[in-house]
Amino acid sequence: MMCSVVFTEQQFIDWVTAGPRAALPVGPGDDCALLHDGTVIGLDTVVEGVHFAPGTDLARVARKALGACLSDVCAMGAVAESVLVSAQLPPGLDGRALADGLALWAARFAVSIAGGDTVSTAPGALALAVTACGRLPPGAQPWRRAGAQLGDLLVVSGPLGGSRGGRHLDVRPRADTVAWIRCHDCTVHAAIDLSDGLAADLPRLTEASGVGARVQAAAVPIHADARALPSPLTAALGDGEDFELLLALAPDSLLPPQSSCIGQITASGLELVGEGGRAGAWPQAGYAHAF
Amino acid sequence: MMCSVVFTEQQFIDWVTAGPRAALPVGPGDDCALLHDGTVIGLDTVVEGVHFAPGTDLARVARKALGACLSDVCAMGAVAESVLVSAQLPPGLDGRALADGLALWAARFAVSIAGGDTVSTAPGALALAVTACGRLPPGAQPWRRAGAQLGDLLVVSGPLGGSRGGRHLDVRPRADTVAWIRCHDCTVHAAIDLSDGLAADLPRLTEASGVGARVQAAAVPIHADARALPSPLTAALGDGEDFELLLALAPDSLLPPQSSCIGQITASGLELVGEGGRAGAWPQAGYAHAF
Repeated sequence: MMCSVVFTEQQFIDWVTAGPRAALPVGPGDDCALLHDGTVIGLDTVVEGVHFAPGTDLARVARKALGACLSDVCAMGAVAESVLVSAQLPPGLDGRALADGLALWAARFAVSIAGGDTVSTAPGALALAVTACGRLPPGAQPWRRAGAQLGDLLVVSGPLGGSRGGRHLDVRPRADTVAWIRCHDCTVHAAIDLSDGLAADLPRLTEASGVGARVQAAAVPIHADARALPSPLTAALGDGEDFELLLALAPDSLLPPQSSCIGQITASGLELVGEGGRAGAWPQAGYAHAF
Repeated sequence: MMCSVVFTEQQFIDWVTAGPRAALPVGPGDDCALLHDGTVIGLDTVVEGVHFAPGTDLARVARKALGACLSDVCAMGAVAESVLVSAQLPPGLDGRALADGLALWAARFAVSIAGGDTVSTAPGALALAVTACGRLPPGAQPWRRAGAQLGDLLVVSGPLGGSRGGRHLDVRPRADTVAWIRCHDCTVHAAIDLSDGLAADLPRLTEASGVGARVQAAAVPIHADARALPSPLTAALGDGEDFELLLALAPDSLLPPQSSCIGQITASGLELVGEGGRAGAWPQAGYAHAF
């Protein structure tokens, strides 16, 4: 047998969290948790050979590790303030370049490095696990996956697809979109960040909300990186690692700059409406770890 | 060349944190950070082949990963409430056993699993990076490495040495000692947890505090696991992974149960006073990652 999937990422999460649920304002199942003291906190890991190729410029590895985690904080509508970094370093790594990259990107993303640890790991297994801590604006509620309502506008914060050409390393967490929304007449009912691709992440939002969605294929914004690919729309739906926000906005909301309304929240089911106006099945795509 | 140490753990940390210091109540350099909203937060990583042998019972791996991180929260005098877990899983791992172990030990240690992530990694590179979040009792200050004062009692919360016989996996964070201290007339001026061994961790406390220490060799409590080893005292000083607390207590403090006073804080220098009453140099021992 070439390969056997013994269990999936979601199964593992379900097993770990099967016991008494965390008595937290927001526990597992969203992009971040919300602690009693108001800290919004999330964790994201990048691993050599899985999230980046061996030999990748270490400053870009650092950017991806920090950016992916900060994207989760953005998906909760919070402002990231600090990070903790688990640096798992194989022998022979250029520690100076990685450390400088971490310091650089923490400064660029305007977060402080609050702590972390540094440990040895096996050759070829460089990994960075980053915990990001943020806060909500005073009086604000966190955005969650649950909460989308019938008739909400389905909005993505920017163009999708083709990230594997290199953009997946140059993560830009959408703090700008969060800041704009917090300052304008824009009501977020639900949110998630697009790390595994719209095809995989939209169902997470609709399932958590107990609703459906209808997406207009022609309205999905396709990134320039995907336009040259054989199937640009397929790439936009399935490539993942766009780190744009997917939002369910109240119908009368202003749309954030650079964002696109790609459809609407419906009562149930997922539909992709093609060019000819015919609704088709939702594509099976997007990235999931299997073990 | 058989092996070349290119950089040390401390150098890497210094490089990462060389920029503008975190504007946090407590930033890098202690066992945990303290965020503005009062969250005490720390991160600890265990890696296959480094912190546990390949084939180790996965429930014990889970216990070690959670316990080591919670020990850091104890070292700040805080009460742990929740954890986030980065599970980096190689192919073929028994995910069910690891997940059950994580759930079991989170429940035993009375913390909730607030979130985390699950990613694939290389064969032989199983790793768990755990972030623990805790809180201080109302009005209490965190214990730090800095703060030890001339004349303070140097106290360890339990016996040391021989952890490599297996105890290093069965971590028991000293939440009991923290709780006792918070309820009794016991003033902590400085604290650190003994993860790398007294020989390595005491200098961290004294350097951060700008003081010295005199330790009575005969007063160092030696764990039963170390008594059968060729050099029990050397084992107690250098083996590491005891996860006991090392405390600098005000001279009139009550001592916590099971703890031992091993010496005193002095103005400068580190001395180990042998059986004959003669002060010797501080031993060079304890564990440090090098790359």
